[in-house]
Amino acid sequence: MIKEISGGVCAPQGFRAGGIWCGIKASGTKRDLALIYSEKLCTAAAMYTSNRVKAASILVSQINLAKGRCHGIIANSGNANACTGSAGLNHAKAMASFAAEQFAMQPEHFAVASTGVIGVPMPIERIEAAAESLANSLRGDAAGHDAALEAIMTTDTRKKDGALEIELGGKPVRIGAMVKGAGMIHPSMATMLCFVTTDAAVSKELLDKALRNAAARSFNRVSVDGDTSTNDMILVMANGQAGNQSIESENDDYKIFAEALEHLCIKLAKMMAKDGEGATKLLTVSVKGAADETDAETLAKSVASSSLVKCAIFGADANWGRVLCAMGYAGIDFDPESVDVSFKSNAGEISVCKAGASHPFSEEDAKKILSEDEVEISINLAGKGQGSCEVWGCDLTYDYVKINGDYRS
Amino acid sequence: MIKEISGGVCAPQGFRAGGIWCGIKASGTKRDLALIYSEKLCTAAAMYTSNRVKAASILVSQINLAKGRCHGIIANSGNANACTGSAGLNHAKAMASFAAEQFAMQPEHFAVASTGVIGVPMPIERIEAAAESLANSLRGDAAGHDAALEAIMTTDTRKKDGALEIELGGKPVRIGAMVKGAGMIHPSMATMLCFVTTDAAVSKELLDKALRNAAARSFNRVSVDGDTSTNDMILVMANGQAGNQSIESENDDYKIFAEALEHLCIKLAKMMAKDGEGATKLLTVSVKGAADETDAETLAKSVASSSLVKCAIFGADANWGRVLCAMGYAGIDFDPESVDVSFKSNAGEISVCKAGASHPFSEEDAKKILSEDEVEISINLAGKGQGSCEVWGCDLTYDYVKINGDYRS
Repeated sequence: MIKEISGGVCAPQGFRAGGIWCGIKASGTKRDLALIYSEKLCTAAAMYTSNRVKAASILVSQINLAKGRCHGIIANSGNANACTGSAGLNHAKAMASFAAEQFAMQPEHFAVASTGVIGVPMPIERIEAAAESLANSLRGDAAGHDAALEAIMTTDTRKKDGALEIELGGKPVRIGAMVKGAGMIHPSMATMLCFVTTDAAVSKELLDKALRNAAARSFNRVSVDGDTSTNDMILVMANGQAGNQSIESENDDYKIFAEALEHLCIKLAKMMAKDGEGATKLLTVSVKGAADETDAETLAKSVASSSLVKCAIFGADANWGRVLCAMGYAGIDFDPESVDVSFKSNAGEISVCKAGASHPFSEEDAKKILSEDEVEISINLAGKGQGSCEVWGCDLTYDYVKINGDYRS
Repeated sequence: MIKEISGGVCAPQGFRAGGIWCGIKASGTKRDLALIYSEKLCTAAAMYTSNRVKAASILVSQINLAKGRCHGIIANSGNANACTGSAGLNHAKAMASFAAEQFAMQPEHFAVASTGVIGVPMPIERIEAAAESLANSLRGDAAGHDAALEAIMTTDTRKKDGALEIELGGKPVRIGAMVKGAGMIHPSMATMLCFVTTDAAVSKELLDKALRNAAARSFNRVSVDGDTSTNDMILVMANGQAGNQSIESENDDYKIFAEALEHLCIKLAKMMAKDGEGATKLLTVSVKGAADETDAETLAKSVASSSLVKCAIFGADANWGRVLCAMGYAGIDFDPESVDVSFKSNAGEISVCKAGASHPFSEEDAKKILSEDEVEISINLAGKGQGSCEVWGCDLTYDYVKINGDYRS
């Protein structure tokens, strides 16, 4: 039984979070420096961007988290600290040190994350000057969570977080998470930062496995614009304070824990897709009847990533031909003449394509269905296999162009 | 010596072209049915979309051109005749028949091309009714060429054509071409139609080879929105009327001919990129110093296809970090710390990134350079190899979203 609770990353026992404005962002109105901290050393697992160009924060976190242990993470927005050479590496290491000094801990026990503009030197002296007030901002409640979340947001328009509670061996166990990401989001991750906390006791290996499974079925099924960032990172920290019997094998407790983590990640992934830069709609693309889940995912992602499909969804135009077209260049073997397509939303469902050809439908009804703020393109390959998958994206709008035509200034 | 001449596909001897309005497009203002014809049977070579969902016109042309012989092509705009089932196949065959009947030729000697909306039945009776006036519209001059070109245009805003003359063994030989394409253009082709005529005498095999080489270095290096259409086709027809000694081996004549064909295709490819849907700028991305030409092309295409780069170019924003980011997810092995980037145009050149890190530059000068209507992103991998490549794309604008948010209606 998964129960939704409040408090985000501060919902699990022993985690505190805080966020302040330290002057990385030009204006003083938004926070830009965050800290999540557990007094008790955590077991940690992380995933990083697949981009060959990796931000300094990624390189330092990879080293610091290599042993799967950490006390927390220091993160900033407003500057990606990417393409910044050896100075950038030193700055990222310094961020870990500033955080560690506040608690007399080892710098190696802190992860570092950054998001913002690429190629601009980090104003590290501002972070140094703010380290003490950052530590003072830590709170183990929703307010601390909210401040930290605000401090990692860039073009995000909404706060994206969640927390839930499960029972393991009769003990309540909590998982909390915050996520940042609006553009550059694509299958295989993008400037997406996701920090997950849990008071579960779990081995490093199984925490890692649960994270990879959850990410594969959530964040890696989101597409906004096809770009993959230099700074992506997902971190999960488990401090064991729930007192459950530590999960050391793939037993029932592991399954409950892994399922809950996946549930939370899917929830945040959908929030992220809906908050894609300039997006007005959450687009779900579902594929059924593919040869296997991988084929279903590849087909669904091709449709969700198509600029032409995304523009049609923005315009509430039932242009199903573009759906078939995008499936056609996905590189997957399927029979175009066995494809059914329908459009769905809270306003109803309408079949627009049967057996790969036009199925008569009311344009008026289709318009109504596609005008909702959450719409689904439902694709059925008519029984050629059991593979199914859902992926999430958004529409492509004037505002996407506006936001990204003038991002730096 | 390549000499530019006028007349487009009618410049080579023995080719005539025409175009009329037959009622596929709703309004009577634009032509929608084209014919290119050579009385003398041509040697033909063609390339087709790689999309798994292929329009009926593609399937029929593949059959009709299998032996590498044709008299011409009948083409329409306003309806893609894709996802139209067996009725669509019959309609595409009928189009070839209508054209053939006018000259008492075999239907199998006509290629068929369509472009427009997917999934709508072709109003074949209108084409049948118009076949005679289509044949009557044929003219062996620039006017015939222009009428045919207009009849295959959809969201194109400019006519894209060219012709040139070379000498083979002292005989003047001409090559003419027209191209249609504005959206859905991507490496590996998209609703791009390109018809090339030549009066050269050349074997089927070498015509095919010359076409594939030319396309690989021209149309396949263009990216507008990453979508690949169901209807792409390039056709080249050679009727031998120039009287040159037929090209049967890769001799000097072949090299001159192949180079001229590539020259013409590159010219049209750049025109196509510049006329991308909603585009305000031609974007050239050049890569030097890659391990080989293939790596250079992959890196350049990743940059030219990035929505974030394209938005920055639209906004004349010197956001070079996005260039490195797009290179980083191209899947190519390179050292980010050896990358130099500069922006170029008629207004000058400015270095913005040296050795993978920021190089101080004047934002004002950069803005001026990027505000020109033809801009280049020049990338140098600093001597790691000799591989170089140029690809062409365009910016991503409000108008792209507008055009594609409301295409059908």
